[in-house]
Amino acid sequence: MVEDAAQARAERAAAAMWADDAASQALGMTLDEIAPGRARLSMRVRDDMVNGHAICHGGFVFALADSAFAFACNSYDRVTVAQACDIVFVAPARLGDVLVADAAERARYGRNGIYDVAVSRADDLIAEFRGRSREVGASVSATGPPIRDNSSA
Amino acid sequence: MVEDAAQARAERAAAAMWADDAASQALGMTLDEIAPGRARLSMRVRDDMVNGHAICHGGFVFALADSAFAFACNSYDRVTVAQACDIVFVAPARLGDVLVADAAERARYGRNGIYDVAVSRADDLIAEFRGRSREVGASVSATGPPIRDNSSA
Amino acid sequence: MVEDAAQARAERAAAAMWADDAASQALGMTLDEIAPGRARLSMRVRDDMVNGHAICHGGFVFALADSAFAFACNSYDRVTVAQACDIVFVAPARLGDVLVADAAERARYGRNGIYDVAVSRADDLIAEFRGRSREVGASVSATGPPIRDNSSA
Amino acid sequence: MVEDAAQARAERAAAAMWADDAASQALGMTLDEIAPGRARLSMRVRDDMVNGHAICHGGFVFALADSAFAFACNSYDRVTVAQACDIVFVAPARLGDVLVADAAERARYGRNGIYDVAVSRADDLIAEFRGRSREVGASVSATGPPIRDNSSA
Repeated sequence: MVEDAAQARAERAAAAMWADDAASQALGMTLDEIAPGRARLSMRVRDDMVNGHAICHGGFVFALADSAFAFACNSYDRVTVAQACDIVFVAPARLGDVLVADAAERARYGRNGIYDVAVSRADDLIAEFRGRSREVGASVSATGPPIRDNSSA
Repeated sequence: MVEDAAQARAERAAAAMWADDAASQALGMTLDEIAPGRARLSMRVRDDMVNGHAICHGGFVFALADSAFAFACNSYDRVTVAQACDIVFVAPARLGDVLVADAAERARYGRNGIYDVAVSRADDLIAEFRGRSREVGASVSATGPPIRDNSSA
Repeated sequence: MVEDAAQARAERAAAAMWADDAASQALGMTLDEIAPGRARLSMRVRDDMVNGHAICHGGFVFALADSAFAFACNSYDRVTVAQACDIVFVAPARLGDVLVADAAERARYGRNGIYDVAVSRADDLIAEFRGRSREVGASVSATGPPIRDNSSA
Repeated sequence: MVEDAAQARAERAAAAMWADDAASQALGMTLDEIAPGRARLSMRVRDDMVNGHAICHGGFVFALADSAFAFACNSYDRVTVAQACDIVFVAPARLGDVLVADAAERARYGRNGIYDVAVSRADDLIAEFRGRSREVGASVSATGPPIRDNSSA
């Protein structure tokens, strides 16, 4: 029952996030899985994401990981923003690749969180991402998704 | 003379990078300045980069910083790839903002480099990015831009 | 059998590392567990590690995590150095605390590796650390531990 | 006059920090310079900081950078804690080396700060460190130095 409530809450927050996230939709991402502290998104590498050698620009790999991180850290339905992220590039993604980003919570303490995201293509690791989040209050599903503003926080 | 040669080399490498970089061009970036160890790129936040509250997805802020980093670390005309990057989000970028990314070399040692990139909108800081690069050999202008593949390196 | 060989190799590398690591020994660390890609070390927070409020200096928390990382990434008995590390401080460690650092491999690709280290005190998380390593060749047990020199690499 | 007041404030905060920081003193650090947003500390690599090859353990290089960061980010006399730090190791430090850590503010926004610290030995770069800080309130000189506790913040 508690688990069901937590899962329902995660789905409610994700639905509110997704409805607002025109950018992730415009990039062709799909939200494949959501659970408390976890999210999986995927994206196909398109023509407009690659250079002349058909290699995906690192910014799009980051964008996919960053979206997965955002869904995971907002899955408790508390408005939560990214403070900082780092990414390690392992292998190039190429035109037509379907990339999958798996985000999982590593730690939560106070209003802070640490989330790890692995970006892969089938069995190949493409990048490892770690994001640090901060809860800034209110309910995502009631008040809308977070605005990433640390300048006055 | 030495300075002129270094500047000419930076411009030659940048031209080869730019010609190949369809993704940065598709994002509407412009290459504003290039010099040995330095690059400045700008980008206007478009409709397809924002969410329902007109806030730019972090992935596009990262992409601009990452491109500036790539131009700066390849300015010695040696094929150089990104190994890892981190970004701190300071303030949100909004629809219509013109973002400027200033990349500057912090250190080079062996085949490694550290570059700092500030992303700003007029006088407002939007994000701070740090990238770590690795030279993998050959001339950018002679052989083409780098493929970001650390998996076999 | 293969597992036994891998475990024996990890123990052989760790023994060579430990014999050389006077600094970790001087800090009172103990090597509690070693396995391929994993290491656990512990350390008691001493008088000379704290400030006037009996709070441990962050440098000693980092040192413990860094040693655990070094043992884990050298557990394949190939000389491997730290390239870069990041640490997130979660809660203060105090005089007398016994800190435990658990290092586990997150990814290996080419000569590169990513290792995560959690530093905790009983059930409390103190810090999360991520290290990036690079294999520089030879056998630890045959030739001695690595010298962390990226300046000519 | 304003500058003089800011400098006096930085010196007052540093004096309060230093009086409390038994750990930095026990490591033999000296506080060489302090100014608003800046600090320089130095430390000699001792017998108990090195391994069998006379190479300094990375934890002590980090500790020096971390102390310089702490003095710099508390120089506005507002209690400020480290949230997260990253370090890139460039070259090994050796027994007897005098290491100098130069910390400088990169950005401040809201209660957050970013500080860069270069650790060098004469003209050789040893490591580059970046720290992210958070102001938690009160005056350092009036109430005492910060306790690094993000677990309830």
